[in-house]
Amino acid sequence: MKITKDLYQSSLALLTDFYQLTMAYAYWKSGKAEQEAVFNLFFRKNPFQGGYTIAAGLDYIIDYCRNFRFDEADLEYLEEMQNSDGSPTFQKEFIEYLRNLDFSCDIEAVEEGTVVFPNIPIVKVKGPLIQCQLLETPLLNIINFQTLIATKASRITEAAKGQSVLEFGLRRAQGIDGALAASRASYIGGCSATSNVMAGKLFDIPVSGTHAHSWIMSFDSELEAFHAYADAFPDKCVFLVDTYDTINGVKNAIEVGKSLREKGKEMVGIRIDSGDLAYYSTIARDMLDEGGFPKAQIVASNDLDEQIITSLKIQDARIDIWGVGTKLVTAYDQPALGAVYKLAAIRKSSGEWEPKVKVSQQSIKINIPGDHDVVRFVKSGKALADMIYLTGNPVEKNNYVIIDPNDPTKRKKININGLEKDNLLKPIFEKGKKVYLRPDIHQIRENAKRNLELFDKAHKRLVNPHIYPVGLEEGLYNLRTDLVLKMKNYDE
Amino acid sequence: MKITKDLYQSSLALLTDFYQLTMAYAYWKSGKAEQEAVFNLFFRKNPFQGGYTIAAGLDYIIDYCRNFRFDEADLEYLEEMQNSDGSPTFQKEFIEYLRNLDFSCDIEAVEEGTVVFPNIPIVKVKGPLIQCQLLETPLLNIINFQTLIATKASRITEAAKGQSVLEFGLRRAQGIDGALAASRASYIGGCSATSNVMAGKLFDIPVSGTHAHSWIMSFDSELEAFHAYADAFPDKCVFLVDTYDTINGVKNAIEVGKSLREKGKEMVGIRIDSGDLAYYSTIARDMLDEGGFPKAQIVASNDLDEQIITSLKIQDARIDIWGVGTKLVTAYDQPALGAVYKLAAIRKSSGEWEPKVKVSQQSIKINIPGDHDVVRFVKSGKALADMIYLTGNPVEKNNYVIIDPNDPTKRKKININGLEKDNLLKPIFEKGKKVYLRPDIHQIRENAKRNLELFDKAHKRLVNPHIYPVGLEEGLYNLRTDLVLKMKNYDE
Repeated sequence: MKITKDLYQSSLALLTDFYQLTMAYAYWKSGKAEQEAVFNLFFRKNPFQGGYTIAAGLDYIIDYCRNFRFDEADLEYLEEMQNSDGSPTFQKEFIEYLRNLDFSCDIEAVEEGTVVFPNIPIVKVKGPLIQCQLLETPLLNIINFQTLIATKASRITEAAKGQSVLEFGLRRAQGIDGALAASRASYIGGCSATSNVMAGKLFDIPVSGTHAHSWIMSFDSELEAFHAYADAFPDKCVFLVDTYDTINGVKNAIEVGKSLREKGKEMVGIRIDSGDLAYYSTIARDMLDEGGFPKAQIVASNDLDEQIITSLKIQDARIDIWGVGTKLVTAYDQPALGAVYKLAAIRKSSGEWEPKVKVSQQSIKINIPGDHDVVRFVKSGKALADMIYLTGNPVEKNNYVIIDPNDPTKRKKININGLEKDNLLKPIFEKGKKVYLRPDIHQIRENAKRNLELFDKAHKRLVNPHIYPVGLEEGLYNLRTDLVLKMKNYDE
Repeated sequence: MKITKDLYQSSLALLTDFYQLTMAYAYWKSGKAEQEAVFNLFFRKNPFQGGYTIAAGLDYIIDYCRNFRFDEADLEYLEEMQNSDGSPTFQKEFIEYLRNLDFSCDIEAVEEGTVVFPNIPIVKVKGPLIQCQLLETPLLNIINFQTLIATKASRITEAAKGQSVLEFGLRRAQGIDGALAASRASYIGGCSATSNVMAGKLFDIPVSGTHAHSWIMSFDSELEAFHAYADAFPDKCVFLVDTYDTINGVKNAIEVGKSLREKGKEMVGIRIDSGDLAYYSTIARDMLDEGGFPKAQIVASNDLDEQIITSLKIQDARIDIWGVGTKLVTAYDQPALGAVYKLAAIRKSSGEWEPKVKVSQQSIKINIPGDHDVVRFVKSGKALADMIYLTGNPVEKNNYVIIDPNDPTKRKKININGLEKDNLLKPIFEKGKKVYLRPDIHQIRENAKRNLELFDKAHKRLVNPHIYPVGLEEGLYNLRTDLVLKMKNYDE
């Protein structure tokens, strides 16, 4: 099966917005194609009104960049594009330039599974302007979605408080890759398994599943259907009990469970997929206990998310395993992250880096200028604050002041005595060559788990979380303010 | 570029829920694998609280089914699956059965671009139980998403009232195929073009785009940036005016527009991507008109959807072209359609078809039993009602009564005198062979447009639409009621 190989490892250079290509052409025409630039990929708000975000998608980006090239069919398509007067949109020499384009950027990125916050650069791309620009759209597509889903999965597994969460979203996911990438990100975020067999095979994720209502309906009776399933999978029986009548379904499951036990086998449990899950799970638990199956597990599904799981737990629902689909893989309550990719600095012909800001009507849309980096201060295993600072500046100090980029009155002093420092951005590509050793998906999942332990539960609360401090180092804050003021007087 | 070829035309047999495979195995073990069944794919509610839905995705399904097979790598993956005791999950003989599986179903489906409603079978699959079952998840994945997005695009283009809507969603879409399939469905639903170059190339959709804020920021001044862009694309200048200050941006655009005109070229327009679009578009329009550019178009973008477009139109915003991204391609306010695929009938060993219902705790979840079909009655170019009826029954009559499946008091008499009848389900595969001639994407888009004209604007209203009548033919309604009552007494 080579679907992801073809999806992510073959030429996807045209998987970009057309304006990246028109800009590429215009950069090339203006002699700016090779001018060096720095772009940052970041988001402005944690999703789901939450207090944290789990970075994901880097592995796809590595494949994307390693295979970044225009193949002949891509070039032919561009070559045949015409203006309204029939003249070619792009000059032949530009097509030739694209044919010879060799990926040569430096890329640094936060590792997958890392807890991140607004304004932190998740990916930083430094290199020829034209290459940085062409990468914008695919990088956003990949990081936006996988980060969103890893975060959603993390919230749902937080709500499940240690119980297994299974991802069942394929049928409602947004497209084929919307499903595959969601299965991957869900596993990173804490899910135990997926129903998506292809995702299991491609990404080495455990797969899970038993039977559907159609299985029951294809027999003359539910009891007959349960028996037939038990014959096929004596060790893996999770009976779906709500095709006709949940209570009666549990009775039938117990009956078949007993006959399995006579053969030395034990039923795994039951699944309830409709109706009042708090009510039916409690009744089912009692019936199973009284029937001699205290270890049989109850799986619940049906439009679950972190809020409903929390509510069911408050109601003392007797649920052991949570099957989560639509609401997870589409991030139903906020189906897009909204990360952006902004020019932060450009190298002048003098060789000097010039920091850049976009001044928007909306203050929150003003980016952080200059080639910058981010460090996480950790004290006794707990993250204290993240500081964004100009790369190579400031030099090592004992005391820093960090300032909230959107509120100058929110400041925090940091004395680094006794603090550990974690530089979140790791080198991934240097001049186009991969220098990063990729962890496997299980290591990434572990990384997410360990990372979450760094943060106080107040930041992980599902509703009204305590805001973790992320600030600009004072020098960077002042640079940004000066630049914005300068640009606002632009006209005067 | 072979991405969709590989995505949709190669072996994707494992792109399914694991329970389809466990059920397949259990069907096979029970000797039911080849038992004939009918499944229907349908949804229960129009999305977005709307009054209609545009079917899409069939073309992908055709590719999927034509290439339905387990390849050696798939089989190897399944063969290596183990139970907890180390024994293989699937018997070798079953793996062999899958190896030789040859797609042999009948498939009927509603054509892409057709206006559909709750309970209408969009796809009907008839064939060996095991094949019908394995197809469930991929069919749902494909139809759910593309139908959702085609409908969203249709609503947005309805709101734009004939003005162009451009789809710009790639960067925020849910995965790579979440973007590609969304671009395709958006075009079907009425968008004029996409920013996604790969979608343009793969699906033959017009592409569109000019430049981003980064283009402006990479120059020393906005004016310089506009001039440089005009040099590269003298015929295609849409200047993005809000990088620093929108009003000043319009001034600069006019200045560059004048210098273009001196060279015999005409600027196309400007784009505003932030701030108050009603306010700024009105000012920009006045400035452009006074500056001698009454034909320059104003493109607006920034989190637009049908509600915001409607609101901007009410405010007399002077916008000519709408760039829509995130809210369209993720169907932001309802990111999943929720279509289901249910067993409707199964062939008994006697040769007789037995209709099947699932009786849920939630009445709306009760399916329509029996092999059924749907006809649309049309009078003088206006759709009157859709009738769902048992295939081959009733025989031709002059009068029908149709009954709302969720409310027996909602009935409608239909006298067929003077009515045209449109059988919505068309044959796509017969015994696994394709019998359907596929329209191209432009024909599909036209079909959607013509289809919408069949319906009164009351059904197309964005808020509180008038409900179009879709009912069960009386005989089918009674069959369903009888079956449900029978199943509810199941235990007695």
